[in-house]
Parts: sequence; C-alpha cells; structure tokens
Amino acid sequence: MTITLQESLELLKEMYEQWMPFDRLLGIRIDSLTPTDVQVRIDMREELIGNFVREILHGGVISSVLDLTGGLVASVELLKHLEGMEVEELGKRMARIGTIDLRVDFLRAGKGKFFTATGSVLRKGNKVAVVRTELCNDQKVLIAAGTGTYLVS
Amino acid sequence: MTITLQESLELLKEMYEQWMPFDRLLGIRIDSLTPTDVQVRIDMREELIGNFVREILHGGVISSVLDLTGGLVASVELLKHLEGMEVEELGKRMARIGTIDLRVDFLRAGKGKFFTATGSVLRKGNKVAVVRTELCNDQKVLIAAGTGTYLVS
Amino acid sequence: MTITLQESLELLKEMYEQWMPFDRLLGIRIDSLTPTDVQVRIDMREELIGNFVREILHGGVISSVLDLTGGLVASVELLKHLEGMEVEELGKRMARIGTIDLRVDFLRAGKGKFFTATGSVLRKGNKVAVVRTELCNDQKVLIAAGTGTYLVS
Amino acid sequence: MTITLQESLELLKEMYEQWMPFDRLLGIRIDSLTPTDVQVRIDMREELIGNFVREILHGGVISSVLDLTGGLVASVELLKHLEGMEVEELGKRMARIGTIDLRVDFLRAGKGKFFTATGSVLRKGNKVAVVRTELCNDQKVLIAAGTGTYLVS
Repeated sequence: MTITLQESLELLKEMYEQWMPFDRLLGIRIDSLTPTDVQVRIDMREELIGNFVREILHGGVISSVLDLTGGLVASVELLKHLEGMEVEELGKRMARIGTIDLRVDFLRAGKGKFFTATGSVLRKGNKVAVVRTELCNDQKVLIAAGTGTYLVS
Repeated sequence: MTITLQESLELLKEMYEQWMPFDRLLGIRIDSLTPTDVQVRIDMREELIGNFVREILHGGVISSVLDLTGGLVASVELLKHLEGMEVEELGKRMARIGTIDLRVDFLRAGKGKFFTATGSVLRKGNKVAVVRTELCNDQKVLIAAGTGTYLVS
Repeated sequence: MTITLQESLELLKEMYEQWMPFDRLLGIRIDSLTPTDVQVRIDMREELIGNFVREILHGGVISSVLDLTGGLVASVELLKHLEGMEVEELGKRMARIGTIDLRVDFLRAGKGKFFTATGSVLRKGNKVAVVRTELCNDQKVLIAAGTGTYLVS
Repeated sequence: MTITLQESLELLKEMYEQWMPFDRLLGIRIDSLTPTDVQVRIDMREELIGNFVREILHGGVISSVLDLTGGLVASVELLKHLEGMEVEELGKRMARIGTIDLRVDFLRAGKGKFFTATGSVLRKGNKVAVVRTELCNDQKVLIAAGTGTYLVS
C-alpha cells in the first residue's frame, strides 16, 4: 500500500503534535506543513520563561523549537523524494530520522507573545541533511538562528 | 555588603532550581554546585519523551540541560573571580550572563531512568567563557556532548 | 586625527590582503568591501587541493575563507559604528577583533575555477557579533556555509 | 587481496602527508598514527601567521589542522572495523570519508614554535562519526578545540 505525499505530511504533523509528549508539554503547533513551507509556532506562557525578571523565553525552549523545526524540514524533504514508496518502508525510513548535531545562536532576548520558526534545506543528501532554521517573535524580530545536521537514511 | 562564595553559590542554585519556570517544568535538580564540581540531574518521566515508540529523551530536553549546565559552570567560574564583590554589583554581573551560542552532539539514544550533566571550562575570559558539557544516563553511558559560548561581562 | 569610513575600509582591505601572511599564502582577494557588501575571492590552484583524485578544495581552505569573510563582515559593521573615532582608538578596537568560534557546514564538493564568499550579520552587539557566511563556486553553486561568533570589544 | 591494519595505517599516513597538496603547503606531519593514538604536528613559520603584529597562527590554519586531525581519527576508527576487508573495497570506503560539519573554538592566541593536535571519538556509527579534537602549543597550552561530524559510509 502506498500513500500520497499529502497523506504522509498529515501523518507527520500528527506525529509531531500528538505523539511526542515533550512537544505537547511545550505546546508546539505546526501552522504550515507543505512541500514548500514549514512553520512551527509556540505561544509564550509562564512555564516557558527562563528568567523571571526579564520574562524571556528559556534558551532550552528555543533550542527545542529550532531542533524540531529542522527535523520537520528534513522529513518533508525526504517525503518528497520517497513519494510512492510502500507505507511500511516509509515508516521505517521516517523512524531513522534523527538529529546528529545542532548549533543554536541566541541573537536577541526572547520577548514576545508567540514565536514562529521556519527552516530551509542547505544539503539534501540521501544520508544526511543540513537545515538552517530561524525563530522570530510576533514582531518578526529574529530571536535565534540554528543549523542542524540530520540523519535521513 | 559582600557575601561569601559559598553564599553566592547557594543563591545561584536557588535561582536555577526555583526562579526559572522552565527549569521547574523540566524538573531540573542541581546535585552538586561547588567551586570545583557542578552536577545537574534530570529524572526521566513521560512528558520528556520525544519518541513514544522508543521512549527516549527528547532532543530539546538534552539541549536544555546541556545549555543550563554550561551556564552554571560559567557562572561558578565568574563567582570565583568576583569573590568579595558588593552584592549589588554581583547581581548586575550575574544578570548579564547569557548563552551566545551552543553546539549539541546527540551521540546515543537517550534511554535511562535519570541523566546527569557535568561541564568543564575551556576558556575563562572576562568577556566570554567557553564550556564543554556532557550528559550521561544512569549507566554512565555518554548520551550527548555540548560546547557553549557564554557572555560573562 | 580621525579618518573617514571609506579610508578605514581601504585600510582594512590592505590589512587582510597584504599584512596577513597566511591570507597571501592562500591567495585571498577582496573583490568588494563597502558598508553594505563584502565579497572575498579565492582562485583554485593545485596547492589548495585536498583530494588529488577528485581535485576539490581542501576543507581547511574553505574554513579559512569563511572565517576571514566573517571577520571582515564583523569589522565593517564595527567600523560603521565607530565612524569619526580617533585613528589610534580605532586601531585598538580593530586589534581586539577575533574569532571566538566557528561552525562550518561542508555541503558539496569544492569543485570550481574560483570561489566567492559573502556574509551577513545576524547579531551586532557591542561585545560580540554573529555572522553567517556562504561560499559558492564559479557556477554560483553553494559549496559551504558558516556561522561565526566574533569578539568586537 | 587484503591488507593488515598496520599496512592500512601506513597508507593513510602517506595519503595525508604526501597526496594532499594543501597538507603539504601547510607542512602537516603525522607524528603518531596507531589504533589508539593519533598525533598531528605543524611547525610555526612565517607563512602561517594571521596577524603580523602579534605573530600568532592564523585561525584558518587552526581549523585546517583540527579538521584533518578529526578526519584521521575517524578514518583510524573505521579501519579498525574494516580489518581484513579486500583492499579495493577498503579504498572505496575510505574515499567516501568526508567532513560534514565542524565547530572550532579559538581559546587562546596561537603562540608557539610548534603545535600538536589530537582527537578522540565521541560517536562511532556505521554512518557518521563524531570526533572531538584539541590543538596545543609547544608548552602544552590548549589553543583551540574542535568537534567535527564525519561521513564514514
């Protein structure tokens, strides 16, 4: 049995939003997940604060969001290339996706009501993918930037 | 008014464990915080899982713990050099500490009942500090390694 | 005595091209150095090859070019903010500029007759600057990407 | 035809010292290359200086040495696991080894008559390896540290 790219993207969204307990704890929402656009959103709330005086997002939340956004972008890229593959085989390939390493640059204090993360593929190999990511606040101010290497085989 | 190094370390522990909402959400505990030893612990629990099938720690939790461990190590180093400083001035210096950038290498699947993070200073400047960190599981298996650059001035 | 921004940029170009022995060994050329555009070029030649079979640029050359391009971009940013400063003071500030850390992603084999590197500032603080850089070959194919943190105070 | 581990290590040494033009330009020497110890040396000379006033090693030289040291360490690790493999197959595997990404932390000014680089494996997978490296000067002062991810399949 094979599934369409659209169906596989819907499955991917469900996986990230519903099946990953820590994503639920953070309150991750995937606003867009198409072959050309991935957008992840997280709303500010008290539990995500790293510094009670300045009321800014904890660096760990920023790293988490950039890491999973990069993973999503790498996954979408892979799904595009695996279109038409048997579901079972697809599942095996998706299960092997994982972050190898991640660099995060914390550029400005994480102030905002909500934050949006996006990413773009720098390298799409059949073994590893490299993805650059960015996190902006509700004023579209760049808060942090990331570069991650992902295993995709 | 000045405080002793011991008093400042106790204050630092309280800051990280009690005053940072996201550290509380994660369940961070500082097992050791002395001039020569910093040890951070996090217990596995369902909310911290990144992959419901494999029941492993979410990469975002790993990044968070390594980031804050590096920040703690950089802070302790700074406190050692600021011993005898006025409390108010000390507070100002501590408030300026922040992560500039962080690299995390995810080496093995985060399986375990609890995890312990430690770190060592590679560079102790009066402007920036560089700290290498490591996260091991309850079997002392190395799960992830980090290198972070911290602003300390 | 003060110098204009234009004069300080010319001095910077001379420093990088003439006064740094290793830049001369590599054969670095600065094709553009204006307040809004920095472009560094290196021509392929036999000594820069890393792999005699595949005839591609050595990774060390790529890291070197991205590092110095990031340093140039950070320097230009600083010079823009220091316009009108006394020459002596300017010299002191410039002498303190240095790379704190650098990440390089090697995306494709370094094949080409010449390579061009550019960069953009992600963070312009008065203590540290973060610069993203890219290296393309003569066909404008992206070969490598970098992110560097530079001390600017 | 198969070769012993010892023979393959000698071949590897020759490759790095003799067959890579840029390594020769830098003046790289491999002082030790055994299954448990890799040591790379570079002597200071005028062409490798990055700053004519301070007479310190160019950051690009440091990145180059750490990158190739990490590659050597990853290669030795691979050779240990491929012992007894046919020479032709071994050659194919070795040719695929390459740096995916590298982080370098520049910790102290590169002053010294010669520099020695070593490395240790953090992750030895059959797809990627992660290696931590360090560069010390002749006084055994740590000058720079690196973390590199290498493709080994």
